[in-house]
Amino acid sequence: MKIALAQINPIVGDLDGNAAKIIDFIRRAEGQGAELVIFPELCVTGYPPKDLLLKPHLIRQNVAAVERIAAACGDIVAVVGYAQPNTTGEGRDLFNAAAVCSQGRILHSHGKRLLPTYDVFDETRYFESNLASDVATVEIAGRPVQLGFSICEDLWNNEQFEGLRLYHDDPIADLARSGAELLINISASPFWMGKPRERIRIFSSQVAEHAVPLVYVNQVGGNDDLLFDGGSAFFAADGRLAAQAKFFAEDLLMVDLDDLDAARREPCLDPLVSVRAALVLGTRDYVRKCGFDEVVLGLSGGIDSALSAALAVEALGADKVHGVAMPSRYSSAHSLSDAEALAGNLGIDYRVIPIEDSYQALEAALAPHFGDRPADIAEENLQARVRGNLLMALSNKFGWLLLTTGNKSELSVGYCTLYGDMCGGLAVISDVPKLMVYDLARHINASAGREIIPEGTLTKPPSAELRADQRDEDSLPPYEVLDGILAGYIEQEMSVEAIAETGFDRATVAEVARLVDRNEYKRKQAALGLKVTSRAFGTGRRMPIAARYPS
Amino acid sequence: MKIALAQINPIVGDLDGNAAKIIDFIRRAEGQGAELVIFPELCVTGYPPKDLLLKPHLIRQNVAAVERIAAACGDIVAVVGYAQPNTTGEGRDLFNAAAVCSQGRILHSHGKRLLPTYDVFDETRYFESNLASDVATVEIAGRPVQLGFSICEDLWNNEQFEGLRLYHDDPIADLARSGAELLINISASPFWMGKPRERIRIFSSQVAEHAVPLVYVNQVGGNDDLLFDGGSAFFAADGRLAAQAKFFAEDLLMVDLDDLDAARREPCLDPLVSVRAALVLGTRDYVRKCGFDEVVLGLSGGIDSALSAALAVEALGADKVHGVAMPSRYSSAHSLSDAEALAGNLGIDYRVIPIEDSYQALEAALAPHFGDRPADIAEENLQARVRGNLLMALSNKFGWLLLTTGNKSELSVGYCTLYGDMCGGLAVISDVPKLMVYDLARHINASAGREIIPEGTLTKPPSAELRADQRDEDSLPPYEVLDGILAGYIEQEMSVEAIAETGFDRATVAEVARLVDRNEYKRKQAALGLKVTSRAFGTGRRMPIAARYPS
Repeated sequence: MKIALAQINPIVGDLDGNAAKIIDFIRRAEGQGAELVIFPELCVTGYPPKDLLLKPHLIRQNVAAVERIAAACGDIVAVVGYAQPNTTGEGRDLFNAAAVCSQGRILHSHGKRLLPTYDVFDETRYFESNLASDVATVEIAGRPVQLGFSICEDLWNNEQFEGLRLYHDDPIADLARSGAELLINISASPFWMGKPRERIRIFSSQVAEHAVPLVYVNQVGGNDDLLFDGGSAFFAADGRLAAQAKFFAEDLLMVDLDDLDAARREPCLDPLVSVRAALVLGTRDYVRKCGFDEVVLGLSGGIDSALSAALAVEALGADKVHGVAMPSRYSSAHSLSDAEALAGNLGIDYRVIPIEDSYQALEAALAPHFGDRPADIAEENLQARVRGNLLMALSNKFGWLLLTTGNKSELSVGYCTLYGDMCGGLAVISDVPKLMVYDLARHINASAGREIIPEGTLTKPPSAELRADQRDEDSLPPYEVLDGILAGYIEQEMSVEAIAETGFDRATVAEVARLVDRNEYKRKQAALGLKVTSRAFGTGRRMPIAARYPS
Repeated sequence: MKIALAQINPIVGDLDGNAAKIIDFIRRAEGQGAELVIFPELCVTGYPPKDLLLKPHLIRQNVAAVERIAAACGDIVAVVGYAQPNTTGEGRDLFNAAAVCSQGRILHSHGKRLLPTYDVFDETRYFESNLASDVATVEIAGRPVQLGFSICEDLWNNEQFEGLRLYHDDPIADLARSGAELLINISASPFWMGKPRERIRIFSSQVAEHAVPLVYVNQVGGNDDLLFDGGSAFFAADGRLAAQAKFFAEDLLMVDLDDLDAARREPCLDPLVSVRAALVLGTRDYVRKCGFDEVVLGLSGGIDSALSAALAVEALGADKVHGVAMPSRYSSAHSLSDAEALAGNLGIDYRVIPIEDSYQALEAALAPHFGDRPADIAEENLQARVRGNLLMALSNKFGWLLLTTGNKSELSVGYCTLYGDMCGGLAVISDVPKLMVYDLARHINASAGREIIPEGTLTKPPSAELRADQRDEDSLPPYEVLDGILAGYIEQEMSVEAIAETGFDRATVAEVARLVDRNEYKRKQAALGLKVTSRAFGTGRRMPIAARYPS
């Protein structure tokens, strides 16, 4: 049997465009002799469709799209993810289903059983669980095959939770017991650093346990904050990874069950390389799926904006990226020279807009109200907000999407200015901790074999330059300490006490935790950020604002 | 039996403070002769605790708080909502439970069965459903009583969904069948206009059907975007509303089952009055629970900022509210005079900060880049952002929380400037459609018996005044039309076609829908807004951004 793994990058809600892409991939699969072609979870709507699923007309249009796709299928069998109306009269309106299409018809639909509702997932908000895990007999290339369908989480079961038995059921065991010859899992599995290898480990062990081969087809592409890395794969019945599609790109991977050794097996990426690829794809997809072509960002001479600019150039091309330096009275000479060197290295448009006159005009307007109060955070933020205002004016005038460049460490503790440097539609590296920002920057220079990010940017002490001689370490612990504490507090939900016990100063831990908690209001209004860790701010971390936090 | 309905306003996450308040109410209930005292759902943590529930140390502290509360109970029986650890080893970590405390101990815990996961609710993210609806025998005033416990949604069952059978179970029927003598429902039921009467209708019908009396205790207060209106009540076995607590205020309502006629029954509020009270309470609680004392807002002379200021004064007192007029070259004379008149009527601090010099300085900085391009939205937004910058500077310098003043109609279609007039920590009226803004303003004047909101503000055509002779109706349909279309599109998820069929011009409907969809990115970064309709932006409406929307 020849199987095509159609790893596509759909646009959320674009039912016509996604259906056209699916039909195009079916044609290409047929052209390569495929008898079975498999698409990702909810590929007709794109994943995650969120509350678009509450629109009854979207549901009707998604069913009509599957019917069009089925009509385009002759002998080939196509498996397509869509939102299937629940006609039982009980429970939620929809199933998250796989439609099996052939001979012009939808032969069969199989709904998802385990509905993730944690982290970034809200599936029980929309879907009813399909309590049966039935095997379907499907005629492929003239012979009946017992197919065992599962959707994403069904395959993970409780393996991912380290001892927690969240789910009562085991869909894969049920399918194996029911005589499945081939397991088919359609997924939209969001990336975080380390997940691709985790996936292979878990899937391989599931397959080996049940001794049934598995085709796994994952979505690829960025949809808002979530990045899908692809890496669709075929596992032989002994659990061996026999074929693997590309990471971070669309792919049509052919697997001939009678000649597994000939199958293509794209390599896994190193974790840091995968984060870079994820950020590049996420930036490209967000910009383009929003209908933009060009982007603008502020260049401070610092490491965060330098990395963001380099990633934007990889994503969009140097001619689509505009960098703006906005020096103030507190900017050091190297800030401008480093920003200029970066722009030169990247080959991007570079402009300088001094903020001094605008800042002074605002200061003068406020002077009657501020009186003789000493300068404080108000004046610092005023500068950052003049910069935000200038960048947004360029964005509005020229139709460039503004990228914001803060990292996860500073967003965690609120070391950033709301409506200032937080202005922007996309936060490219807001889920990247500061130490990893340096790692990525060095990796970019190393892989280019030349200086992209200027050496000065890499070596000087980080500073917001909003007052004379300011350095990050005046306000924050060294990043080695800060990032360690944040990993415990945010990703692992550890208490102050528990983090201190791992070897950090208790008072420092308590202060970092206090800063994280009290800056929830800033993150409420932060730009959407690309998720690359196991716990990102945004949809995966839902915190109250007007609240007290336990230590 | 004497029952006390303890309708409290907890702070989310403030375990010690909430426990102290609960013990204080228990003492007061005892002082009034109560034998049973009942508190709201999750009152120990405050509702909704959101991802604070993922912190294991918070869960431990919440259990310890219930133990302290139990230790404070002698003969009185107290029913307290908390997060109960799930020790079955299967499913999610927690139950959303009612603890029955007496004689120094937790006698019994009852978990919630129906876990709402729609609109603003995410309960299956945290809680396991308690599949049993058992009746508990509890000794009250020396005699065993069969109590039937339910938590919030358990009492609503499918009644609220107009024909949809979302839930398979019927907990109240099970309790009645099992011999409950008294139904106890602890709730944290968020307000929207019309919900208090809906609640009475549904509860009364549930009680009458099963012929068992019901004590219903609701949380009161604002927690972020959600407003809890209280209105705790006792329903006699025939479904009659026999006692009702205050709306929008803490209360301790005594109900003597042997003398129901003596029970206090606070009146329901008219819908418009209830929205006003909700916004006042929501503003007060957000400001104070965030640790602020004073607020600042821009006064444009228009209706939105006037209403927001009036509500803020009701919430906090005139001496806590600072109004700032920020005239530009495009401001009409009446803008300043109306703003000044409003401030005078309210008795608040009033300042004028012209934006012309700051605007010109920014324009000059941008001139080399803008060249001879005609003025457009970039220049309009620049003015709004100068104002946002000035207001935030005052906020930072004086520690005043900035209120933003946009209404739901303009937020829907994006008729507002990100980082400009959208700056602020709380959007007081961002869930109030424009026509209701007028209704509320007139109601405030009428109930004061004098002009609070100036007549000129009420009668002049709405304008953003960001260019010469600009009026809202240059860009938007008349608000009578716009609000009608938005109600269909946002609250009822109707298609363009379906809305047009109710009597609106199809092209106008399509354009409004397009504006709603394409401005999702602005709402992503909008301030938290107080929910007063059945569908508000924010946690109850989760839309993708980089997406296409079906019409």
